[in-house]
Amino acid sequence: MKGWFGYLLMGILGISAFTPAVAQQRSSYVLVIHGGAGTILQKNMTPEKEAAYKASLKHALETGYGVLKGGGSSLDAVEATVRVLEDDSLFNAGKGAVFTHDGRNELDAAIMNGKTKAAGAVAGVTTVRNPVSAARAVMEKSEHVMMVGPGAEKFAKEAGLEIVDPAYFRTESRWRDLQRALREDSIAAAKSNAYTNPGKLGIKNIDYKFGTVGAVALDKQGNLAAATSTGGMTNKKYGRIGDSPIIGAGTYANNQTAAISCTGWGEYYIRNVVAYDLSALMEYKGLTVQQAGNTVIKKVGDMGGDGGLIALDKQGNMTMSFNTEGMYRGAVTKDGKIEIAIYK
Amino acid sequence: MKGWFGYLLMGILGISAFTPAVAQQRSSYVLVIHGGAGTILQKNMTPEKEAAYKASLKHALETGYGVLKGGGSSLDAVEATVRVLEDDSLFNAGKGAVFTHDGRNELDAAIMNGKTKAAGAVAGVTTVRNPVSAARAVMEKSEHVMMVGPGAEKFAKEAGLEIVDPAYFRTESRWRDLQRALREDSIAAAKSNAYTNPGKLGIKNIDYKFGTVGAVALDKQGNLAAATSTGGMTNKKYGRIGDSPIIGAGTYANNQTAAISCTGWGEYYIRNVVAYDLSALMEYKGLTVQQAGNTVIKKVGDMGGDGGLIALDKQGNMTMSFNTEGMYRGAVTKDGKIEIAIYK
Repeated sequence: MKGWFGYLLMGILGISAFTPAVAQQRSSYVLVIHGGAGTILQKNMTPEKEAAYKASLKHALETGYGVLKGGGSSLDAVEATVRVLEDDSLFNAGKGAVFTHDGRNELDAAIMNGKTKAAGAVAGVTTVRNPVSAARAVMEKSEHVMMVGPGAEKFAKEAGLEIVDPAYFRTESRWRDLQRALREDSIAAAKSNAYTNPGKLGIKNIDYKFGTVGAVALDKQGNLAAATSTGGMTNKKYGRIGDSPIIGAGTYANNQTAAISCTGWGEYYIRNVVAYDLSALMEYKGLTVQQAGNTVIKKVGDMGGDGGLIALDKQGNMTMSFNTEGMYRGAVTKDGKIEIAIYK
Repeated sequence: MKGWFGYLLMGILGISAFTPAVAQQRSSYVLVIHGGAGTILQKNMTPEKEAAYKASLKHALETGYGVLKGGGSSLDAVEATVRVLEDDSLFNAGKGAVFTHDGRNELDAAIMNGKTKAAGAVAGVTTVRNPVSAARAVMEKSEHVMMVGPGAEKFAKEAGLEIVDPAYFRTESRWRDLQRALREDSIAAAKSNAYTNPGKLGIKNIDYKFGTVGAVALDKQGNLAAATSTGGMTNKKYGRIGDSPIIGAGTYANNQTAAISCTGWGEYYIRNVVAYDLSALMEYKGLTVQQAGNTVIKKVGDMGGDGGLIALDKQGNMTMSFNTEGMYRGAVTKDGKIEIAIYK
C-alpha cells in the first residue's frame, strides 16, 4: 500500500499516466494492450528485463495490428494478441502463469464482441494452452457464457483446441514466487486465527496478484472487442476466481461505448463491476472514455484496491488508467505507430 | 418463446406485473423474494401445488421478516430467507436443485452487503447444504469474492458450514426432468452438427433454466442486502456457470441505489450485467427502481432472453419485473403485511 495516497491524489487531480497530453487525446488508436499493473519500479528493473518486456509487448501489438490492417475483425485481433502474451512466459497468463497454493496453474480468460455483446469465459482451466481461445469457443460454439474447471477443459478439447500437459505452463521464477508466498503465508497464518478466517491469505507482496494480460481493439468495420487472460494470484486457494473471466468486472465490450480489459486486485474489480461501470458512465453520464476510466480506477482506489485498465472507444479514443507504480502497456494507432510504456 | 412479443409490448407500454397500482407504489417494503421465473401457467397448476408454493414463499418471508423485525441486519435477513428456500425442495436451489448432464447437483450462490459493497459467491458446489451461507463465508472469512468447485467446498468445510452427501439434494421430479432433457438433447444433437457446436444443448423447454431463488432486504438501520441461490439449468454441461453467482449480473447491492436479485436465462443476464445495470440506471440516470427494473428486463427481452428480477431501494420502493408467464414472488411491508403472487 506504499505510496497509496500519492496515487489517489493523482487521480483526484486528474493526472493520468500515459504521456497524457499527446497519446490519450488523439482519436486514432486501433489496438491497446496491457501486461499487468503493479509495483513496477525502474530501480528494480534491469535494462535486459525491460528490453525483453518491451519486445514482447511490441510483438503482441504487431500481431494484433497485422490482423486489423488486413481487414480482420477486432475479435480476431484481440484473440491473436492475447495468444502471443499467453505464449510468452514473461506474463501471468498461459505459459508463465503464477501457481496456486496447491502448486497448479489455473487459468482464467474472457472475450467479448462489442457488436453483438456476445461473450465467453473460462475459469480454472489447467490444460488449455490458450485460454482466450477457449473463451472464444465458449462464446461461439456453445449456448453458454462461462464454463469452469474440468467441464471447461472437456469443452475446449471437444472444440478442437490445443490441449497441453499442465507442466507446459510451469516456469521456475513463478515456482519460486509460490515458495516465497507459502513461507509468508505460514507465518501470517500462525499469527492470525486460521480457524475463524480460513481464507485470509496474509499476502504481503500485493504484486502476487498482478500480471494479467489484455487487449482491446477497433476494426475497420467499426466494431470493438475486448479480451483478458490471467493466471490469477500466486498462492490462490479454494478455487478463487478473480475479475478477468467475469463479464462486466474484468472484461466488457459494447460498440455503443467502449471495449475494456482490466488488471489488478480482482476482488475490488468484481465488487465495483469496473469494466461495465466504465461503459455505463459513458452511456448514461456522457463521460469520455478517459474520464470514465479515471473515475472507475478512483473508485477502486477509494475502496482500497489497486490496478489498472485499458479502454478504447469506437472513435479510437483510448485510456490506460492505473493507480499502481506501473503497468506494462502499449498501443497502436491506425497508421501503425507503436507506443509502449511501463512506468508511471 | 411463445407469447414473446406480448411481453415485450407490455414492457414497452410500461405494464408491470405485480398488481402495479397498489403494490409497487407504496414505499414501505422491507423484504422481497423470488422463487424463479418461467412458463408458470395457472392452467398447468393444481390447487395443491399452488398452495404448496404459496405456503413456502410465506414461510420464507416470515423467516426473513422475523430477522428484520427483531432489529437484525438485511444481510442476516436475506441469508435466512434464502436458506429456507434452499431447504425447500420445491425450488431449484439447495435441496431440489436441477441435475447437470452428468447427473449431479451443482449449486451456485452469491450475497452482497449494500452498506460496504462487500460480496461473496460460490459456484459448482455439490456438498454444501446451504450455498448462500458459503457465499457469506467467502465474503466475511476470506479475502476473496468468488470460489468455485472443490476449492469452494473445502473452504466451506473449514469455515464450519454444514456439509452433506450429494444425495441430499436429489429429488425424483428433478431427476425425471433430466431424463427428459437427455432424451431431447440426444435428438437435438443428432440433428445438429455436434462436432462444430459441442455446447449447443438444443433444449426445447426453456423452463429447464429457471427456478432460482433470491431475496433483497432493507433493515432498520437503512442497509440493503441481496442474495441469490440456484441449481442452474437442467442438463447443464461443461461446468457452466450462470448469472446467479456473478456479482453485477445476478446479484448486486448498494445502499446508494438498490439491492437486486435476478432469475432467468443466465447467459443474457451476464451479457447485460443486469443487476449492476439496474443500479447504474438509478445512480447515473435518476431512474426509479421500478423504471430501472423495467428497463433492464426490456434489454434482456430485446436480446432474446427472458426472466425476471426483484429490487428494493433504500426508501422501501420495490419492483418485481419479469417478461415470462409467471414468477414465484412475494414481499413484506415494514408493518408485516405479506403479499404473494405467481402469475402475471
